Amino acid sequence: MIIIDGKQTAATIRQEIAAEVEKMVRSGRRPPHLAAILAGNDGGSITYVNNKIKDCAEVGFTSSLFRFDESVSEEELLQTVDKLNRDPEVDGFIVQLPLPRHIQEHRIIEAINPLKDVDGFHPVNVGRMATGLPCFVSATPAGIVELLKRYQIKTSGKYCVILGRSNIVGRPLSILLSRKDEYGDATVTLCHSRTPNLKYFTSQADILIAAMGQPGFVTADMVKEGAVVIDVGTTRIPYAQAKSGFVLKGDVLFDEVAPKCSYITPVPGGVGPMTRTALLLNTLKAARKEI
Amino acid sequence: MIIIDGKQTAATIRQEIAAEVEKMVRSGRRPPHLAAILAGNDGGSITYVNNKIKDCAEVGFTSSLFRFDESVSEEELLQTVDKLNRDPEVDGFIVQLPLPRHIQEHRIIEAINPLKDVDGFHPVNVGRMATGLPCFVSATPAGIVELLKRYQIKTSGKYCVILGRSNIVGRPLSILLSRKDEYGDATVTLCHSRTPNLKYFTSQADILIAAMGQPGFVTADMVKEGAVVIDVGTTRIPYAQAKSGFVLKGDVLFDEVAPKCSYITPVPGGVGPMTRTALLLNTLKAARKEI
Repeated sequence: MIIIDGKQTAATIRQEIAAEVEKMVRSGRRPPHLAAILAGNDGGSITYVNNKIKDCAEVGFTSSLFRFDESVSEEELLQTVDKLNRDPEVDGFIVQLPLPRHIQEHRIIEAINPLKDVDGFHPVNVGRMATGLPCFVSATPAGIVELLKRYQIKTSGKYCVILGRSNIVGRPLSILLSRKDEYGDATVTLCHSRTPNLKYFTSQADILIAAMGQPGFVTADMVKEGAVVIDVGTTRIPYAQAKSGFVLKGDVLFDEVAPKCSYITPVPGGVGPMTRTALLLNTLKAARKEI
Repeated sequence: MIIIDGKQTAATIRQEIAAEVEKMVRSGRRPPHLAAILAGNDGGSITYVNNKIKDCAEVGFTSSLFRFDESVSEEELLQTVDKLNRDPEVDGFIVQLPLPRHIQEHRIIEAINPLKDVDGFHPVNVGRMATGLPCFVSATPAGIVELLKRYQIKTSGKYCVILGRSNIVGRPLSILLSRKDEYGDATVTLCHSRTPNLKYFTSQADILIAAMGQPGFVTADMVKEGAVVIDVGTTRIPYAQAKSGFVLKGDVLFDEVAPKCSYITPVPGGVGPMTRTALLLNTLKAARKEI
């Protein structure tokens, strides 16, 4: 059984990105520039955006943050999106979700220029992904596929079961892994809250991806001997002894599932760091006008 | 075992549409207008477009056809797309595929105004479908879902296996049927040419949808007792005795599979007529500005 080290893999990729940025700068180009829009005071969102900015600094990207109050209007956000769309110094930008309740998220996201949509949430990018055209793929699915590649875990012809049909993880992954592609070509079943007998499906899977946000949901009896298990869950569980006051728990009961696996990702240190790094990879692509 | 009568269902829906059009016209509005762009001399394409125009006449829609030679340039097609995008008298239009080989199909499709894209092929419509937003759904998947609705065949909680991952049938159906929706909420497996043991999956399916284009591929041993079988295949097989010189064959070996099914669609007379009718429904939606 091999524990997939997402932290180390992400660090390696960040070094590769930093080297690319150095090359760009040496050749007289400006470094890639990622902007972020953050509205409201959600603790999780603030942490995520701060981490993204820190990541940018680490690899030599420029970053900028546009912060708004909880009370920001849709109009103000749209104006900022429009400004960033037109700013030639900004290669890509993200709008941190969730937005305040009175904002229609899809209106903001659909206003983003798809060529700067490094989160890959714009319908044009989702649709281009679904039809096999070049596009920005959202960070978590892209990070997972990158992790499989780096560990040379083949997906072609494998049976892959995904738990959770969210728009940012399960749905896009189900599309990516079943596309005609070297790192696709899997037979994929997408399970969700209306699937009557999850164990029936999970116990058949060569590759099991848990993205439900239910800590410890996947137990050993649900997993086939020798399976590859990817745990996307990151639920914060209060824990007084931790400096942050919480620990992250995955959807997989690691201690009992791991011995049955050929490969497994831990939480933390598995998919999480790859998600952050995939955003940097997308920003680099945007700066190079690869899409 | 019930044979799903797509021809009759389509005829009923067309009557409903015709009644709607009459109402629109009585209230002083113009009837819905569908335009079609056809390039080249592919026999199949000409027949399809002619049928669509005939269908428009039957329900009282206006239609118009823009025909081009095989040698048409991308620029000419883009100009026509642009003209139709801006013409307030045209509610929706389609570009009949395949286009001549020297044309980049995706460039033409991405030039269509998504609000007039009644074929639902524009990435914005595919992406909106994948993320659960209002959109135009392409005709074959939309027609199949409509058929399931009219026959009150529940999909929620059912296990659905789809054979074939094309951008116009298998892929969008896999998304539609697994979405959070009364006529979704199925657990869906998408199988394709790289699936090692198709029978393993098909024989577990409550609902089996065959969309591979391989006549007679699905045999009785591949189907679960009591399954719903939807046959999307329509391969033309030369047949001298037929007036047209060919017969249509589905992907399912109907005679041996039908006795095991709870419901099954025949070929012809199953999915085909519903596909044509779904295009009319989309055009009606476009005329009413429902999307």
